[in-house]
Amino acid sequence: MTTAAKRQLKLGAILEGVGADHTSWRDPALAGDASIDIGWYIDNARLAEAAKFDLVFIVDSPFITPDTAPHFLNRLEPLTLLSALAVSTSKIGLVGTLTTSYWEPYNVARQFGSLDHISKGRAGWNVVTTGLEGASRNYGRNAHFDHAVRYERAGEFVDVVQGLWDSYEDDAFPRDKAAGVFLDKDKQHALNHKGPHFQVAGPLALSRSNQGQPVIFQAGVSGAGRDLGARIAEGVFAGVDGFEDAQEYYADLKARAAAQGRDPDHISVLPGLSPVIADTDEEARALAEAQRGSVSIDKLLTQLGRAFGYHDFKQYPLDGPFPDVSGLSLNAYKGHAERIVRISREQNLTLRQAAERFGTWRSDFVGSPQTIANEIQRWFEGRAADGFILRVTRPRDFALFREEVVPLLQARGLFRTEYEHDTLRGHLGLPVPENRWTRSPGQLAAE
Amino acid sequence: MTTAAKRQLKLGAILEGVGADHTSWRDPALAGDASIDIGWYIDNARLAEAAKFDLVFIVDSPFITPDTAPHFLNRLEPLTLLSALAVSTSKIGLVGTLTTSYWEPYNVARQFGSLDHISKGRAGWNVVTTGLEGASRNYGRNAHFDHAVRYERAGEFVDVVQGLWDSYEDDAFPRDKAAGVFLDKDKQHALNHKGPHFQVAGPLALSRSNQGQPVIFQAGVSGAGRDLGARIAEGVFAGVDGFEDAQEYYADLKARAAAQGRDPDHISVLPGLSPVIADTDEEARALAEAQRGSVSIDKLLTQLGRAFGYHDFKQYPLDGPFPDVSGLSLNAYKGHAERIVRISREQNLTLRQAAERFGTWRSDFVGSPQTIANEIQRWFEGRAADGFILRVTRPRDFALFREEVVPLLQARGLFRTEYEHDTLRGHLGLPVPENRWTRSPGQLAAE
Repeated sequence: MTTAAKRQLKLGAILEGVGADHTSWRDPALAGDASIDIGWYIDNARLAEAAKFDLVFIVDSPFITPDTAPHFLNRLEPLTLLSALAVSTSKIGLVGTLTTSYWEPYNVARQFGSLDHISKGRAGWNVVTTGLEGASRNYGRNAHFDHAVRYERAGEFVDVVQGLWDSYEDDAFPRDKAAGVFLDKDKQHALNHKGPHFQVAGPLALSRSNQGQPVIFQAGVSGAGRDLGARIAEGVFAGVDGFEDAQEYYADLKARAAAQGRDPDHISVLPGLSPVIADTDEEARALAEAQRGSVSIDKLLTQLGRAFGYHDFKQYPLDGPFPDVSGLSLNAYKGHAERIVRISREQNLTLRQAAERFGTWRSDFVGSPQTIANEIQRWFEGRAADGFILRVTRPRDFALFREEVVPLLQARGLFRTEYEHDTLRGHLGLPVPENRWTRSPGQLAAE
Repeated sequence: MTTAAKRQLKLGAILEGVGADHTSWRDPALAGDASIDIGWYIDNARLAEAAKFDLVFIVDSPFITPDTAPHFLNRLEPLTLLSALAVSTSKIGLVGTLTTSYWEPYNVARQFGSLDHISKGRAGWNVVTTGLEGASRNYGRNAHFDHAVRYERAGEFVDVVQGLWDSYEDDAFPRDKAAGVFLDKDKQHALNHKGPHFQVAGPLALSRSNQGQPVIFQAGVSGAGRDLGARIAEGVFAGVDGFEDAQEYYADLKARAAAQGRDPDHISVLPGLSPVIADTDEEARALAEAQRGSVSIDKLLTQLGRAFGYHDFKQYPLDGPFPDVSGLSLNAYKGHAERIVRISREQNLTLRQAAERFGTWRSDFVGSPQTIANEIQRWFEGRAADGFILRVTRPRDFALFREEVVPLLQARGLFRTEYEHDTLRGHLGLPVPENRWTRSPGQLAAE
């Protein structure tokens, strides 16, 4: 068990361009083309690195409609984006989202492995299964995979990718020019995976980086999602609803990881963070209120419906009780949708109240820099979080966090003042995984 | 018809790390890890840009064996690699190879579209169908697609990707902060493609770059390959066997393009170039001889077999006639394999002679810088090539070409001394394709 003194707060930055909400893009200080401008990403990644953040994080989704939020409508693709950031930064981790439902494991292993070399050991893969039914139509399928199948496939997909990443032992390449021996052929290994969903022979044409393998992130909320996270994830982008819910999620996920024989310290729980910061708590609350008020109820209902696969909530009376959606399959964002239904029922929310609560980012972090730092510390020390992933869109908000909140966290000894490592595994306190072909039988048994 | 005076020689650089042959990696001046070192690629891309090359070119293959040539055994993946180069250079084109046999069109459209934004209009996609049967086992298939099916799929795949690239009209995003209008929804277009091999709805979550769409490259040799190239390619990496063969290929491809109603000037024919350069022709010939002699006959036979899907040629008598391979399906590199058989028969080559001829790069360009420049000019003016793609591995060879050959080509007015454009389309003299949703009916009819 690690002591509290040794724990290190982790901070990530979601670089989200013009924003996954419907208002941020109207900020006069934010360029309208931020989501497709590599310069915007490079500038913000460098700012995050100067503030000693652990990582930048790129969200994704392979499906849009005309009503999709601005950032998702028109944006750079995660792998190409992160490779450009890799040569524009030197320390910060680079985590990209990619779905296991519509890719080939061999291609994913190559691209994240390559990013890991280009960044010299700073790559991470946020494994998602894609919630939106419509994605299937971009990939030649009439229907999206069922929720349970998606998680089965995801688990096997990650196993295959991690197997491919171990294709070469670390000393496989003598590169002996005099003797003419480039490769030691005995240290190249085919995977020959044959599973229910994937058959992949290998080997991958790529050796391991200095952090061994890219770090695995995940963001599951449902039971199946949590089980997968507990087995494979080294970082979790946690969708939680307030402090108590976060504590429950944190304890549950760490317990599930321990039950699988893993060290719970090797899985960081990182809720999303959308703070509203001002000089005083009162000003911050007024600002948060104004931001909420600027979003139309139509957009809130659209966003609420997203968790239910873009279910049309405009058909129900706004001030009636939260509608009965028990007939819906909940195949999209199952965990999120179930939570919305449960809380709306428990708290007798009207549809309007539910839309206001769940149709935009809920922020538990509204106040002065001091108040924000206090709240971060409370969550961290209360085991509701190992750190946070900050949404970065508006320049003012990010500047206040870096310049006013981070120094308070540093002064309290919660957050680093200098990088102690060069790799993402180093930042997160994760060991370099040994190559499966060089592990001793004893090591294998101990895992 | 363009006049000879207006024609501009094009030069590309294949950045091939430790080399697709079996000897380059032993060069003392070449780092053994060049193929996985982004620094090596950045340095050489910048050198190519300083020499005013049109483009860098990244070859690829999704299958290896222990006997694969050093560069292919362990190398960076093209898209991630090129994105890193995109922010490390400012003018030079960036062309990556990707197979249509084992990817999803939606993912390919996103990644090359994103590279096109990151590079500000310098992306190109070299469309290949994958020759090696073994690739199928990395993607859950028992057998590789048949040659004919591969080319059918490739044509439809490119149609889908180009359709997705036009998802937004160029003025689709008013981004009117005062009025709260980010997207003009009438200017977002779903593709709704339903073809024999792919069904893709769209829209893609990415607008067009300043060159409209990435440039399409291709490298077909067989009849089906040439037909596809004539229809879709704007640049062709031509595998040719000497001046006369190149002239035939050039005339044939341009005629096939014209027959499809295309402007033959909008398809550049660019053979690969592996010159052996020394102070005098005599020294260069001796150097070429020494390089050839350093490759064992076993490696030459392996490399010869690659065109036939790694057929084992070691089973035949070395000094007997080229063996009868008429029982082989030629499903791998069909065009190359057919040419090897044809020439070996015509010239009564023994197996050893065929291996020496086809098992390593055939160079028609051996001599002093003056001789190399003369030969390039002869091919260019003799309509055997619109330019060349130079293999870059050994530092000395690349330096001699840049410092000794390029200035001669520039002095003769064949090659640019400064970039006149910022995009790959600009360099290659290609127009920006109009978005299909804004073309007038008259324009459509004229195409």
